Amino acid sequence: MKETATPGFTLKDVPMPTIRDDEVLIRVRRAGVCGTDVHIYEWDAWASGRCHPPFVVGHEFAGDVARVGSLVTDVAVGDRVTAEGHIVDGRCLLCRTGNSHACPYTKVIGVDRDGCFAEYIAMPATNVWHLDDNISYEIGGIHDPMGNAFHTVLTAEIPGATVLVTGCGPIGIFAVGICRAAGAARIIASDVNDTRLALAKTMGAHDVVHPGEVEEVVKRHTGGLGVDVVLEMSGVPAAIHQAFALVRRAGRVQMLGVPASPMSFDFATELVFKGVTVYGVTGRRMYETWHQMTRFLRAHEFDPTPVITHRFPLECADDAIRAIKTGEAGKVIFEIA
Amino acid sequence: MKETATPGFTLKDVPMPTIRDDEVLIRVRRAGVCGTDVHIYEWDAWASGRCHPPFVVGHEFAGDVARVGSLVTDVAVGDRVTAEGHIVDGRCLLCRTGNSHACPYTKVIGVDRDGCFAEYIAMPATNVWHLDDNISYEIGGIHDPMGNAFHTVLTAEIPGATVLVTGCGPIGIFAVGICRAAGAARIIASDVNDTRLALAKTMGAHDVVHPGEVEEVVKRHTGGLGVDVVLEMSGVPAAIHQAFALVRRAGRVQMLGVPASPMSFDFATELVFKGVTVYGVTGRRMYETWHQMTRFLRAHEFDPTPVITHRFPLECADDAIRAIKTGEAGKVIFEIA
Amino acid sequence: MKETATPGFTLKDVPMPTIRDDEVLIRVRRAGVCGTDVHIYEWDAWASGRCHPPFVVGHEFAGDVARVGSLVTDVAVGDRVTAEGHIVDGRCLLCRTGNSHACPYTKVIGVDRDGCFAEYIAMPATNVWHLDDNISYEIGGIHDPMGNAFHTVLTAEIPGATVLVTGCGPIGIFAVGICRAAGAARIIASDVNDTRLALAKTMGAHDVVHPGEVEEVVKRHTGGLGVDVVLEMSGVPAAIHQAFALVRRAGRVQMLGVPASPMSFDFATELVFKGVTVYGVTGRRMYETWHQMTRFLRAHEFDPTPVITHRFPLECADDAIRAIKTGEAGKVIFEIA
Amino acid sequence: MKETATPGFTLKDVPMPTIRDDEVLIRVRRAGVCGTDVHIYEWDAWASGRCHPPFVVGHEFAGDVARVGSLVTDVAVGDRVTAEGHIVDGRCLLCRTGNSHACPYTKVIGVDRDGCFAEYIAMPATNVWHLDDNISYEIGGIHDPMGNAFHTVLTAEIPGATVLVTGCGPIGIFAVGICRAAGAARIIASDVNDTRLALAKTMGAHDVVHPGEVEEVVKRHTGGLGVDVVLEMSGVPAAIHQAFALVRRAGRVQMLGVPASPMSFDFATELVFKGVTVYGVTGRRMYETWHQMTRFLRAHEFDPTPVITHRFPLECADDAIRAIKTGEAGKVIFEIA
Repeated sequence: MKETATPGFTLKDVPMPTIRDDEVLIRVRRAGVCGTDVHIYEWDAWASGRCHPPFVVGHEFAGDVARVGSLVTDVAVGDRVTAEGHIVDGRCLLCRTGNSHACPYTKVIGVDRDGCFAEYIAMPATNVWHLDDNISYEIGGIHDPMGNAFHTVLTAEIPGATVLVTGCGPIGIFAVGICRAAGAARIIASDVNDTRLALAKTMGAHDVVHPGEVEEVVKRHTGGLGVDVVLEMSGVPAAIHQAFALVRRAGRVQMLGVPASPMSFDFATELVFKGVTVYGVTGRRMYETWHQMTRFLRAHEFDPTPVITHRFPLECADDAIRAIKTGEAGKVIFEIA
Repeated sequence: MKETATPGFTLKDVPMPTIRDDEVLIRVRRAGVCGTDVHIYEWDAWASGRCHPPFVVGHEFAGDVARVGSLVTDVAVGDRVTAEGHIVDGRCLLCRTGNSHACPYTKVIGVDRDGCFAEYIAMPATNVWHLDDNISYEIGGIHDPMGNAFHTVLTAEIPGATVLVTGCGPIGIFAVGICRAAGAARIIASDVNDTRLALAKTMGAHDVVHPGEVEEVVKRHTGGLGVDVVLEMSGVPAAIHQAFALVRRAGRVQMLGVPASPMSFDFATELVFKGVTVYGVTGRRMYETWHQMTRFLRAHEFDPTPVITHRFPLECADDAIRAIKTGEAGKVIFEIA
Repeated sequence: MKETATPGFTLKDVPMPTIRDDEVLIRVRRAGVCGTDVHIYEWDAWASGRCHPPFVVGHEFAGDVARVGSLVTDVAVGDRVTAEGHIVDGRCLLCRTGNSHACPYTKVIGVDRDGCFAEYIAMPATNVWHLDDNISYEIGGIHDPMGNAFHTVLTAEIPGATVLVTGCGPIGIFAVGICRAAGAARIIASDVNDTRLALAKTMGAHDVVHPGEVEEVVKRHTGGLGVDVVLEMSGVPAAIHQAFALVRRAGRVQMLGVPASPMSFDFATELVFKGVTVYGVTGRRMYETWHQMTRFLRAHEFDPTPVITHRFPLECADDAIRAIKTGEAGKVIFEIA
Repeated sequence: MKETATPGFTLKDVPMPTIRDDEVLIRVRRAGVCGTDVHIYEWDAWASGRCHPPFVVGHEFAGDVARVGSLVTDVAVGDRVTAEGHIVDGRCLLCRTGNSHACPYTKVIGVDRDGCFAEYIAMPATNVWHLDDNISYEIGGIHDPMGNAFHTVLTAEIPGATVLVTGCGPIGIFAVGICRAAGAARIIASDVNDTRLALAKTMGAHDVVHPGEVEEVVKRHTGGLGVDVVLEMSGVPAAIHQAFALVRRAGRVQMLGVPASPMSFDFATELVFKGVTVYGVTGRRMYETWHQMTRFLRAHEFDPTPVITHRFPLECADDAIRAIKTGEAGKVIFEIA
């Protein structure tokens, strides 16, 4: 957990979480480690401005339901589940018009309230998502970032499209596999790291290239016009400029990666004159994305297993953070119980 | 060709077609035979009301450009090509707002003007579509019906969807393969004919069933709710009722099959109260569908070859028609030169 | 209320409804009378197959909150409110993907449980909709059918469109006014009844015509092509055929009216070959339509007041039903408290 | 015309343009002056990098057809017309998939080839747009910038929306009027100039405010959430930041204004985390926007006349440019013949 407003995590015994009448208690089996957790670990500017220690970190997990509140009717003790980590107010304009993923009153587990790097977590029943019998806790534990990837990919028109994926972190690599399953005609994935490019290849990228080679490869496969869709997954300013340079006119840029600070951008030539559409991806559609994700897994057309490269017990949190910071890891998870 | 207003086709020498300045002359190599050609062969009520013999039948083909008009700049002698058989006016409201596939002034080759069951055909240059080097004349010759299938499938939202395809004629079977390539989560195909069901299986259907078994299979795989999308490819009234019965509420029915005559339909319970969307599929989007089709072929994610089950020389037109009428055939083509 | 399985309504004292912890009790001030209520009054085949007397009829209303359950946080005693009458399960596929208006587990007040033709009604808090201060109970009491009209109109693309509205019952007339506010270029409204046509004119129709004149007027204003959008609000088979005959190719037919029984329909020429899209309208989008409706009222661009033609006390239920059955009425409402 | 690569325009006799067989010659009656023309007049960095004097400037106009090429069938001598000034290749991927407004091979009249600040102009027949009898040459002469406004407005979802228009130059003011006609619930227009704000008020803005007051007014009318849609019409960096700050989460920013140079932008907080969609507006959809524009004018729901504030003979080009540069003008036009 995050005990104090200083770098690092602390492992300690905490009381069992209490649950409200409309909540459930979940015994955590597997939990994914995310870049957000690294920010909290390092206690950078964003983390210290947003979070209030002490609190339990972690927002990606799967486990078994251990207790249910008196008002809960659709979740039972023993159910194998994961959960949407965005707890939304449910009655604002956004929530009531299909955009609860962007609810301005969102509380995120592991950031704004206790999270899942623990033996137990309390969750509102409405956020719980049941796992099919043949889905492991491990896959269940990464539904949150896979959901980001599904949201990014499936809000673009992918069947028959040429796609550039800039940035092959775990979400970028998931996105490659989803694009492949959804009938993209050509998937070009770029990253600086060869280990990650190898994973992107495994997940179905037609071309895996370093940033310096992207332009040539894109032009060759698109008659010089650029790709229909770019999935910007890196947050690196140079990649963002490349995204806008290499999307075709009237194309679409899906932005999930975020730069650490403001950057220089030429709206005239990079966006307006090209007639492109840009979509900022936050969270996952609740719960359209979750249904889509479950359908892809059920159809066996998408298997995220190769993306998981590291597994640690909760005791080795420092090692897990270190693995991510090397830039070589795919998805890193905690094996908890 | 269709020489007189009576059943049958006639093989005879005709003069080489002349071309206008904005047209090209194409030497036909392969031509597909369509249900429409059967109607003209049989000279049924529709055919005798629409067509004016003598004229050359046939609207699906591929070949080589043999001559180009003086105004043609983007097609050259020797190019390997196929063509969109709908010749539209290009300046009506429909044509100018992205709906030229539904232009009310359309002339169809092989129906309203000379077609492709011949050694040469004249086509407006704007209707010509270039074939990639690795696409055979045979595949080129079936771009028209494949285009119908792509239009039907890709105007629905397929990635992650459960899909029922009612009717496994050639276009239905193409549609199965396209759904699979585009990431459908479950494809249930139905037909009365086992040969066609076997083709549907080959092209990627998860379940192939007779009409009497459809309801049970759909309910099992959709938690009783019905499928997200139905592709109605049969035109059989019983299948149409099944389509509306088995699509889920707020789902989508894509109708390409056409019943031979008016039928009884309960708008209240079959359509309105279920909140479904129905889309009537005519032709192919010009030329969005053509680009999508080329992209899928180029990506090797969709291979229509297994659908072609019969090949005949033009001399054996009667045999070709007979093969279609058995209801056992996939796609039937003429090998011309 | 509907006391027995025979025609007619009965006025009698009933116990005050009890509420659950997540419900509110509303004192009803105004209630709208709907064609559905007429079916229940007459106890026709549909009603006797669906409803289980004794129960309180009525599903359109506005009033004041009189009591709130212990779990209710966003509704308070004294709030001026109306409510969505579809009580949905909230956790099925439909509800979780933005289609709760089509939830297969819907319970409708006044049909499947006690309704609003009474002094008090119990409603789930989540179904309650607050009224702006300057919206009267009378306007509040017709939010349900207005919502049907908004749903019908705003799921088509109206700005700049030519629109035919077939059927000028209350929902059809509302739709005329919404089309006008949303920038339809030409609104042609048809009905057999001149009183209703006069209301349609008041609400902004450019042309109000009898069914026999529709074709000529549509063709004159659309260059012979037909209208972009038809809103079918009558459920009359002849009007439905006219809708499909007069929508332009690749146009859109929104169907809210329902024929009483199956009818003959030629899918080939009326729907498929024309390339049209048909949308079955059920209920109102929850709660996108409600937000849109509130916005239009707030902007004063749409005023439904002229549509309300008859007001009765609850004691005169027979008169209210009789007024609707004349076919001359706009909206008929009960003034309750 | 632009005679040399130096600031200013020159008035001189030039030969009558020749036309190709598929072109028409148009006698120019009225021509609009655009910010682009000011750039060419001033011969700034953009102009000197793009244009090649000598050439005739001007791209907005209306007039009469004076001659037609031998292949032209749908335009006749004497027709009252305006024209789309983007001359596109018609066969690239963009042109063939409904995006010719973004064709990478576009030639713009008055920029890349001779324009309309002259007595005659040659235009491809396919670019000609007929004017209704009751549309004046003056209104015809501003169809190009009105088309930009229609494109900007009607690619967002306006009926019932709250809209912020940042920048009240001519296109921004047109956009205000179109939003009003299309049923926006609240239109807030901002500019630094009171004359322009008065025009915006005349065209239907509910609130006209200076940039410093925008935030307060937006928050008051949107419950603090921000507007559904921003139309960014200024190109001023401060306004662009305001656009992204004041659009609600999951809202839409339509960008037509272009900043003169790259600017600092925080993708994380301004775009990605808010889940917004951004659309870069270039030109007008060919020819969907033109049809929509004609429909709005025909319905008399939108009258651009008040936006035209200055009229000059061609001899007073310097005065016209000066009028624009004051920042006080609405639309400035040349009266030519």
